[in-house]
Amino acid sequence: MTTYKLLLLPGDGIGPEVMAEVEKVVGWLGKAGLATFETETDLVGGAAIDTHGTPLSDATLAKADAADAILLGAVGGPKWAGVDYELRPEAGLLRLRKDLGLFANLRPAICYPALAEASALKPELVEGLDIMIVRELTGGVYFGEPKAITTLEDGSKRAVDTQVYTTAEIERIAHVAFDLARKRSGRVASAEKNNVMKTGVLWKEVVTRIHREHHSDIALEHVLADNCAMQLVRRPKQFDVLVMDNLFGDVLSDIAAMLTGSLGMLPSASLGAVDAKGTRKALYEPVHGSAPDIAGKGFANPIAMIGSLAMCLRYSFGLGDAADRIEAAITRTLASGARTRDIAKAGDAAISTAEMGDAIVREL
Amino acid sequence: MTTYKLLLLPGDGIGPEVMAEVEKVVGWLGKAGLATFETETDLVGGAAIDTHGTPLSDATLAKADAADAILLGAVGGPKWAGVDYELRPEAGLLRLRKDLGLFANLRPAICYPALAEASALKPELVEGLDIMIVRELTGGVYFGEPKAITTLEDGSKRAVDTQVYTTAEIERIAHVAFDLARKRSGRVASAEKNNVMKTGVLWKEVVTRIHREHHSDIALEHVLADNCAMQLVRRPKQFDVLVMDNLFGDVLSDIAAMLTGSLGMLPSASLGAVDAKGTRKALYEPVHGSAPDIAGKGFANPIAMIGSLAMCLRYSFGLGDAADRIEAAITRTLASGARTRDIAKAGDAAISTAEMGDAIVREL
Ligand SMILES: CC(C)[C@H](C(=O)O)[C@@H](O)C(=O)O
Ligand SMILES: CC(C)[C@H](C(=O)O)[C@@H](O)C(=O)O
Repeated sequence: MTTYKLLLLPGDGIGPEVMAEVEKVVGWLGKAGLATFETETDLVGGAAIDTHGTPLSDATLAKADAADAILLGAVGGPKWAGVDYELRPEAGLLRLRKDLGLFANLRPAICYPALAEASALKPELVEGLDIMIVRELTGGVYFGEPKAITTLEDGSKRAVDTQVYTTAEIERIAHVAFDLARKRSGRVASAEKNNVMKTGVLWKEVVTRIHREHHSDIALEHVLADNCAMQLVRRPKQFDVLVMDNLFGDVLSDIAAMLTGSLGMLPSASLGAVDAKGTRKALYEPVHGSAPDIAGKGFANPIAMIGSLAMCLRYSFGLGDAADRIEAAITRTLASGARTRDIAKAGDAAISTAEMGDAIVREL
Repeated sequence: MTTYKLLLLPGDGIGPEVMAEVEKVVGWLGKAGLATFETETDLVGGAAIDTHGTPLSDATLAKADAADAILLGAVGGPKWAGVDYELRPEAGLLRLRKDLGLFANLRPAICYPALAEASALKPELVEGLDIMIVRELTGGVYFGEPKAITTLEDGSKRAVDTQVYTTAEIERIAHVAFDLARKRSGRVASAEKNNVMKTGVLWKEVVTRIHREHHSDIALEHVLADNCAMQLVRRPKQFDVLVMDNLFGDVLSDIAAMLTGSLGMLPSASLGAVDAKGTRKALYEPVHGSAPDIAGKGFANPIAMIGSLAMCLRYSFGLGDAADRIEAAITRTLASGARTRDIAKAGDAAISTAEMGDAIVREL
């Protein structure tokens, strides 16, 4: 049996708590003879700033580069609000994404049946919801240059961010979306603002061509990003795979996640290009943030983090069966009534992060 | 009695239909002796392209500049999907905003009691909802340069949009938000992505300073734009006044509008700076678009357009009483059960655009 090298980067806030539960599942996978892992744990974000003065040390980046996959908890928190922009916790995560070339961010928004009522939307609008947002993750306004604040002669300031996209960047993310759609409902919606942004014009043009040349078996729809946000709220089930740029993906995937009523349950995968050996760099992390307000209290829901491990097994190691088993154990655990605070109904008893982790391992 | 010069720009799609209903209300205002108007109608968007080959002629811009206020229907539609980027229908609207200096876009998201059930959200989350989104409208990625697509040596392309904000641009929109909050609940939330964007860093810095120096009586909260989008869906009533840049304002105001369940009912105001004479340029338009799919069928809801006239009376002419009367007539008309198709419950009878306009005038 292959031994996979997993780098664990718990990060800040609730990151370490939810990562501890993943380690239980990793232990179970080994005992069950499904997969063996060599895990190493390192610092990222605020935790790395506190120790190394930088949110991602070169040594950690090298380990990330050498690992077969990375599991990340979350970064950031008010403790580091005052640090330099270049050294803020988020810069560690952004450097990982950029330097490892993790351009394809897959963010499933699934409404767990047991939790449909927790959604702000009417249950009938979200029951059975299963959307996959494909977000471009290494381009756009996140990384374009110039990106600077300059002081003008009169002492006032001028800030600039630059949104850049090239044909090649759009092509590769479009392929990811179409390929995913083929294994799902066969439908892709591509969102941009081609009525205002030149990057939107190029985005639409390239997605249209890639569709025509390589994926004409898939149904493609173009939608303006503002309208797409509306439609997500109005009738989310109209969508299956959605593809968009880094910034729209940031905002719209958060909306989609919130619709499900179970933000604490949603994993994500950030994937690089497939190399000559058929492998790809990959980082898996929950969609939720570091939630500093509840950190250290044992309230956090570890399901998104454990679900991220399941995505890792599926996308990085071809262990779809093991992934299915973990996801089924999560579903059974929820069906049995186990609830952390974030998903418990008002008045209902809630269990701790560790109890939820244990319950899932028991179901396994 | 002063005579106000109103420029009507019905535009495309359902624009002309809903504008026709506004003209009825303008007529009533005159007859009731509340205000007299000199109205002129002109072309914008696709309609102007068809006639003049440009989405906003210089002559129309001059009329807009000379008017006391502008009412605009909507622009755009698939008919003009093929025209040059510089000449697309939206460019007419963007030029009006930019050349008239209409930097402050006020987008109220109000949930009409009679329509709370039409929202995708659970009624208890939206009943009584009354948010005011203050969107910066003449800066950011909409207008920053460079904004271009270039062809690279290998034939592939590179598209760039530039998001720019200066201290002065942020200061003036912040003042608008704080001043509005003072007449409302006294709370402002400012949304940006200071963890990723330099414009977000400057935005937060300037809003914080303007608050401290001029508006410390108002409660200010900073929220990341992606989290803000989530919170709008999760618990919209936590917000009162929200202030943000052009692009986030575009997306988040559409979400807020959709929450109310009554997109066809929401007006907006785009205001310039107050000049030495105490007047300001202003354009009023519905939040909804040109809805080409239902254009010409008499299905459109004219309430957002009529509500835009009410905002015009209030913000441009100091005629708050007349504005209140129009808004009360709209509320009574809805309470009487009158519904256009967009707000009728499945199976219920719907009335036409003209019938809705007539019903409102009757209530007046
Ligand atoms: C933490 C932050 C930099 C990040 C982003 O904006 O991409 C987060 O919001 C996300 O969506 O992963
Ligand atoms: C029509 C379009 C250019 C416009 C915008 O993006 O600003 C519209 O979506 C709006 O919100 O007024």
